[in-house]
Amino acid sequence: MKTIIKDGTVISASDTTRADILIDGEIIKVVGIDIPEENCQVISAEGKLVMPGGVDVHTHFELPMFNTISSDDHYSGHKAAAFGGTTTAIDFISQDKKTIRECVDAWHKKADQKAAIDFSFHMNITKFDDNVAKELPQLRCMGINSVKVFTAYNNRLRLNDGEIFKVLRIAKFDGLLVLVHAENGDVIDILVEEALKKGRTSPKWHAYTRPAAGEVESVYRVIKLAEMAEAPIYLVHMNTKGGVDHVRDARQKGLPVMGETCPQYLFFTVKDLQRPDGSKWICSPPVRTDEDTAGVWRAVEDGSLQVISTDHCPFFYDGTKPIEYEGEKIRIPGKELGKQDFTKIPNGLPGIGDRLMVLWTYGVVANRISPNQFVQITSTNPAKIFGLYPKKGTIQPGSDADIVVWDPNREIDYGTAYACHRTDYNLYEGWRLKGVVEKTLLRGKTIVDNGVWHGGCGEGQFIHRGEIAII
Amino acid sequence: MKTIIKDGTVISASDTTRADILIDGEIIKVVGIDIPEENCQVISAEGKLVMPGGVDVHTHFELPMFNTISSDDHYSGHKAAAFGGTTTAIDFISQDKKTIRECVDAWHKKADQKAAIDFSFHMNITKFDDNVAKELPQLRCMGINSVKVFTAYNNRLRLNDGEIFKVLRIAKFDGLLVLVHAENGDVIDILVEEALKKGRTSPKWHAYTRPAAGEVESVYRVIKLAEMAEAPIYLVHMNTKGGVDHVRDARQKGLPVMGETCPQYLFFTVKDLQRPDGSKWICSPPVRTDEDTAGVWRAVEDGSLQVISTDHCPFFYDGTKPIEYEGEKIRIPGKELGKQDFTKIPNGLPGIGDRLMVLWTYGVVANRISPNQFVQITSTNPAKIFGLYPKKGTIQPGSDADIVVWDPNREIDYGTAYACHRTDYNLYEGWRLKGVVEKTLLRGKTIVDNGVWHGGCGEGQFIHRGEIAII
Amino acid sequence: MKTIIKDGTVISASDTTRADILIDGEIIKVVGIDIPEENCQVISAEGKLVMPGGVDVHTHFELPMFNTISSDDHYSGHKAAAFGGTTTAIDFISQDKKTIRECVDAWHKKADQKAAIDFSFHMNITKFDDNVAKELPQLRCMGINSVKVFTAYNNRLRLNDGEIFKVLRIAKFDGLLVLVHAENGDVIDILVEEALKKGRTSPKWHAYTRPAAGEVESVYRVIKLAEMAEAPIYLVHMNTKGGVDHVRDARQKGLPVMGETCPQYLFFTVKDLQRPDGSKWICSPPVRTDEDTAGVWRAVEDGSLQVISTDHCPFFYDGTKPIEYEGEKIRIPGKELGKQDFTKIPNGLPGIGDRLMVLWTYGVVANRISPNQFVQITSTNPAKIFGLYPKKGTIQPGSDADIVVWDPNREIDYGTAYACHRTDYNLYEGWRLKGVVEKTLLRGKTIVDNGVWHGGCGEGQFIHRGEIAII
Amino acid sequence: MKTIIKDGTVISASDTTRADILIDGEIIKVVGIDIPEENCQVISAEGKLVMPGGVDVHTHFELPMFNTISSDDHYSGHKAAAFGGTTTAIDFISQDKKTIRECVDAWHKKADQKAAIDFSFHMNITKFDDNVAKELPQLRCMGINSVKVFTAYNNRLRLNDGEIFKVLRIAKFDGLLVLVHAENGDVIDILVEEALKKGRTSPKWHAYTRPAAGEVESVYRVIKLAEMAEAPIYLVHMNTKGGVDHVRDARQKGLPVMGETCPQYLFFTVKDLQRPDGSKWICSPPVRTDEDTAGVWRAVEDGSLQVISTDHCPFFYDGTKPIEYEGEKIRIPGKELGKQDFTKIPNGLPGIGDRLMVLWTYGVVANRISPNQFVQITSTNPAKIFGLYPKKGTIQPGSDADIVVWDPNREIDYGTAYACHRTDYNLYEGWRLKGVVEKTLLRGKTIVDNGVWHGGCGEGQFIHRGEIAII
Repeated sequence: MKTIIKDGTVISASDTTRADILIDGEIIKVVGIDIPEENCQVISAEGKLVMPGGVDVHTHFELPMFNTISSDDHYSGHKAAAFGGTTTAIDFISQDKKTIRECVDAWHKKADQKAAIDFSFHMNITKFDDNVAKELPQLRCMGINSVKVFTAYNNRLRLNDGEIFKVLRIAKFDGLLVLVHAENGDVIDILVEEALKKGRTSPKWHAYTRPAAGEVESVYRVIKLAEMAEAPIYLVHMNTKGGVDHVRDARQKGLPVMGETCPQYLFFTVKDLQRPDGSKWICSPPVRTDEDTAGVWRAVEDGSLQVISTDHCPFFYDGTKPIEYEGEKIRIPGKELGKQDFTKIPNGLPGIGDRLMVLWTYGVVANRISPNQFVQITSTNPAKIFGLYPKKGTIQPGSDADIVVWDPNREIDYGTAYACHRTDYNLYEGWRLKGVVEKTLLRGKTIVDNGVWHGGCGEGQFIHRGEIAII
Repeated sequence: MKTIIKDGTVISASDTTRADILIDGEIIKVVGIDIPEENCQVISAEGKLVMPGGVDVHTHFELPMFNTISSDDHYSGHKAAAFGGTTTAIDFISQDKKTIRECVDAWHKKADQKAAIDFSFHMNITKFDDNVAKELPQLRCMGINSVKVFTAYNNRLRLNDGEIFKVLRIAKFDGLLVLVHAENGDVIDILVEEALKKGRTSPKWHAYTRPAAGEVESVYRVIKLAEMAEAPIYLVHMNTKGGVDHVRDARQKGLPVMGETCPQYLFFTVKDLQRPDGSKWICSPPVRTDEDTAGVWRAVEDGSLQVISTDHCPFFYDGTKPIEYEGEKIRIPGKELGKQDFTKIPNGLPGIGDRLMVLWTYGVVANRISPNQFVQITSTNPAKIFGLYPKKGTIQPGSDADIVVWDPNREIDYGTAYACHRTDYNLYEGWRLKGVVEKTLLRGKTIVDNGVWHGGCGEGQFIHRGEIAII
Repeated sequence: MKTIIKDGTVISASDTTRADILIDGEIIKVVGIDIPEENCQVISAEGKLVMPGGVDVHTHFELPMFNTISSDDHYSGHKAAAFGGTTTAIDFISQDKKTIRECVDAWHKKADQKAAIDFSFHMNITKFDDNVAKELPQLRCMGINSVKVFTAYNNRLRLNDGEIFKVLRIAKFDGLLVLVHAENGDVIDILVEEALKKGRTSPKWHAYTRPAAGEVESVYRVIKLAEMAEAPIYLVHMNTKGGVDHVRDARQKGLPVMGETCPQYLFFTVKDLQRPDGSKWICSPPVRTDEDTAGVWRAVEDGSLQVISTDHCPFFYDGTKPIEYEGEKIRIPGKELGKQDFTKIPNGLPGIGDRLMVLWTYGVVANRISPNQFVQITSTNPAKIFGLYPKKGTIQPGSDADIVVWDPNREIDYGTAYACHRTDYNLYEGWRLKGVVEKTLLRGKTIVDNGVWHGGCGEGQFIHRGEIAII
Repeated sequence: MKTIIKDGTVISASDTTRADILIDGEIIKVVGIDIPEENCQVISAEGKLVMPGGVDVHTHFELPMFNTISSDDHYSGHKAAAFGGTTTAIDFISQDKKTIRECVDAWHKKADQKAAIDFSFHMNITKFDDNVAKELPQLRCMGINSVKVFTAYNNRLRLNDGEIFKVLRIAKFDGLLVLVHAENGDVIDILVEEALKKGRTSPKWHAYTRPAAGEVESVYRVIKLAEMAEAPIYLVHMNTKGGVDHVRDARQKGLPVMGETCPQYLFFTVKDLQRPDGSKWICSPPVRTDEDTAGVWRAVEDGSLQVISTDHCPFFYDGTKPIEYEGEKIRIPGKELGKQDFTKIPNGLPGIGDRLMVLWTYGVVANRISPNQFVQITSTNPAKIFGLYPKKGTIQPGSDADIVVWDPNREIDYGTAYACHRTDYNLYEGWRLKGVVEKTLLRGKTIVDNGVWHGGCGEGQFIHRGEIAII
């Protein structure tokens, strides 16, 4: 079946054109004007913008944490993504089996039957030994070209600096990109222990015990480790002015250093943690200061950060009360677990559905970034970096017809009623947004149409990824 | 008539796609796959790259200087441009008539009948008073959205800082972009006078009397003037590490500061001026040091400079001997005028035809920039900045069919025999280049086809430019 | 006659010692412990600090400006200085006679009979031609090793950049230090004209029409001119963060760039100009922002600025009302001249008597600088830079016995009642200060003793200065 | 007994004066002119410079390493120091006993009977637990106010980052200064293992396996740890441009960060390791590149580094052959131990006797630093920082009469024949030096007099140190 998206303004990472798009099956065939409509289904995009579907490279669906689990699974999370204009997601595999192969298989088991948008995986490396070293190169055969390491969470997720150095060298050799969660684990552990001893248990202490200076230090440390290993590196969820300054400096020296931030680090600060419902904003790394949000925005604007992802990892604010989701009553323990102790609050925020619309209003409408930069940061760049391009991340002949029709003029009051995450709160509750998703197409099929869901479990495909790119 | 460019790899500022291009008359209609060929002329681009025609925003055709004139006119220069893959040029109008309108008219008189590619003009402002101030806003009605000022050439071209500040404020108000030639005129004059007194007359003294520190100072000065005027600014022919560092710093503070360099500043240094035929490399500002070329390359790579133009302003090396050009014997006084005195050497270099091929080999093949960056810097960015986009600078439905078919595999020995400038030397004589222009299309017409010229005098159109863009 | 200052704590630019000082006539003979007291007058300094007398290298006594004159002459100004612990002052000579020699003579005529502390002169160069160029080297014979140039006050005091470059080259050759008042004169004139046209006449417009960015630009410009001239340079009255950052950068590259600030730039901002009596704070360059005062403090603390002087140039706030000074009624037109027009407010502030005590409280007591740094910045450094050392600026055997006995424990309410300037207001009125001058010795003679004046007209000597120093 | 040092030029960290010095017993009584000579021994210093004795805060006497021991003990090393103008040394205590108290006692046992100049100790903290934490504050009672930690030498000397953070917090609380040896231990171990596997065993591999980037990273890391701990920090033996840039940056933000370098890092590079006798230059951290030596010099010149010490830790080049020392044949295994394997070369260099004379010629005579800076960096600053001041580090009444009489005009050919280290080689063999030690006084006693030794075992005193200073 053929479809024409007609009369829209097509936006790529560098261009803006009034054009029609002809889709044949799952694939874009033509971008042009005056395309004959015969035998085609026609979608009118008059007055609308037409952009490649969003690519969110940082999600955690159904992730066990503390005494609960993140409340979106691969279905509910994908559905929320689609409503927010995102058509590809990359989730992180926990290294909790004996072999990497088993870990990957386990994640496929969780995801494959549920997936409603296209997806891939990063592999967390949280234990490292010779066996892991030997197994790492096989990831490419499994379609995975990226691993994540941590400099924090001592005795849980952290690798030591030597292990990270080794992973970087293997990765370089085998075409894997190393993602890093950079915070100073040692300092955090000491400060947390001290805070608890002193009875400092409220949410804001989550931030005070994870100091920005420790993050800035760790970012610099891993950049230097990567420099010594001559390997590319990608810093996840950047949130400090000092950290993005280090990334910028490294890039200007020509080093292959890249980084992402997430919307929460552009909008919220430790002041939000001081609210009565402050635990809603608990994530790791924590939200910081106004100076940091300004610095991170600056890095988005000038390209020092290449990607905005979400680190989507939602929990209920009050997991004692069920919510209704697709006709079922759902109740999952959440933030309330840490009422007496900030270290027990599940770390993470909902966001996969919010990303594009919040960023459009506060980025594009607010004149911080252009529509082309918007596409670049949320779709083209992540697709290129992680080897999804040109299948994903662009509207070009031959690419998958993953397309968002965007109404730039419609205004809404945003919040839980609009977003589709399987949780009881939204960070942007009550925010006025201008510019919303009208339709989302996944490989040619309209899965979201003016708020109506046409997608389904298992319709999303695992994408075997190609070469990473340094941009 | 319809044309299809078939099976090429289409390169934009951000994307790379295997696709066909359907041209209807002067306009691109469709970019797609499997486009029906019936009733179409077919150009095979199999194994070739297809890029938007180059946009060279800095040329000086038929410019009177000292006791001669630059040796390419709007026809010969345009022809050389087309052979080099460039389809749009912007030339600078001298302010040598009573009113700006008269100056513009005079330039049209020189250009309109000769133009062989599309073109526009910048207006030099080298005298400033209340009348000029009043006339400036009318430039927009004449299709011109940019003016150039000089901080050097005292008593000839220079405006003082206050006048530049005033021009910036007017420009900001009226949507004009101010281009600046930034060198320190005062210091130059003192050093030149001193050099001549001491009998230092050889070409290298051209460079020694125009110190880099003076340029770096002037770049900073005009950036601060623009900051105070809250106006955007565009630095022409940047050539010092210190200068591009200032541009980078300004951009990172979010200031609307942009800049270009030219190939000569990426490849040559004062050592070239010390050759026996050093006067061939005499241009203003002068070529500098290895540290400077490295710094300027870095700025091209990281986007601190947005454009590479040519400052094409050719002279004969030995103007006493005629050369043959389109069947005629041409002889124009040239560099030999300054044999006894570097201050009498006409300042300027040929380059409009060299730009793309030299930059491809030493930028793209050498792995400094990607093919997308190549398109961005040489075509899309200049088109956007100067209000030519989306008519020029991109391969999109609706855009002018200004297209280059590029053979990335062909290797040649470059030099005067290949380039078509109307002069007797080439800066890149004997250089081995890989990647050359196979065909050049101007608004759908193939004007260069495997080294054969199908263009003609007067076929180029003046482009009435739109809004400038800050990128 | 011999004098012993006994039991004090002697503070130098690097050392702190409990020691006695033996003075023989005008000269320090010995610094030691257990010095025999026979035949000596003994001054007890128990519990007191003993420091070299202050050196203020930036004063304007009896300076004609607009329709008035600065209200301290060389006697009243020197007396105020002595009460504030300062024993040497350097005043600026206006270039208002035909020859430099005549200008210097005229200043001697004003100063020699009145001087109550030791003194010297800088020569302003506000007109430059070949005659001036020829006369400049003779300054050294007149005991003067420093000249000042201006980048602002177009058509009054300003030299153009070429002239400044020439002065720098002559100065370098002849061992003169070039002081620079760096603001952007062109921009100021345009903004002032515009402000007046719009009826913006209140004091704060003095600051708004002299933008910080223009100063920052000019500082950088003269640093680069000096770099090209290979000459040392000394920036006067620095007041912007951006400006001191440029000085710091230049110094870190090893360039001979030095600078001073004045107390007003450490304590006051444009908010003070918005007070009802804002004209009291009108000086040029103007006071700036909190960010600037913080930046300037930082530069004082880390040694990027080497000197704190005063730019003492007092006017009456209300010159219509006489004040009593040494038994006389004095009335001199003052700040009220500019009530309707900020451009007519005489530019300048009282300060020579305030400098040390205000800086002690807010610098040393506030723990920003050490007592040694205090001595360094206010006495040793200026003495060294301007060729007064080791005669002035230190307590060493062989040096002039210019000494301040300082009571670090006494607290006072400061203001006009305490300071001795010949004007009707004080910038620090009502400020609580801790640490005050108890005695001031000039070449062995106690000229201030617990608030009683023992000095006199003509007792100050002109100091023929030696070599400048780069520090 | 009283002594007068007559007619010399006395140099302090800030002042230069022609003056005599009266010493009474061990103490300086008077600095003055025309001091009566009766009953005094007179030392003529006419034409000489008189400076405070050098303070070397980084030595390793008789330190066991690998299968040998550093070849100078507290006597031979002190004697070499005195010949080189140094009168105080601080040695590092190994933490190789059960308690810190026992470690300190052991070091006293090694040093007290042998000491020939005054001395103190730093305490290495290479194992950290609660007992150590509890014992640390007692160091102050033992006269010790400084501890050293390592980020390298995994499983031998290194503390992990959390332990360093804890030490910093304790140190801050108890007035201890933390010295840090900053290299990246993890990376070194990996690279060393790899090099050995590949048979890369020559001396230069010592440097290649300890990359500069790892040092730069570690310097930054500990600065940030100190920032988070709000503790001062002192980086030992800095040797990279990147490292000193971090120290400079930190200081400009007002952080209490200090650092030293050693002569070897000012003069030698990895090229010296490539010589046939390259092992002579093996020390840790290694000598680096020309760019690094230039950067470190710059930091010395501009005060970003406050101290030059030696890290004196000599070994024999050929320990199989005895040398004669004070009549005895001495033979200690040395650099030859690592002939087949760079990891077995004892790390360390002789230097305590070379420091002042080498630095004078290449610092002062070469016009990089002034004589005052020389005194500041080699004597006053280290004395102040480590709480020896004003007893040591200055020529002031009341200070210890530790004095060097320096002949600035004498020229020598330097080397083993001149220096007195107990080893068979000298790094500066054959260097021409101008400016040498004529006499060295320790607390009033002339212990070196024109090359003759008058000192003795046990004449040096342990100095119980006072408060550290941040400078």
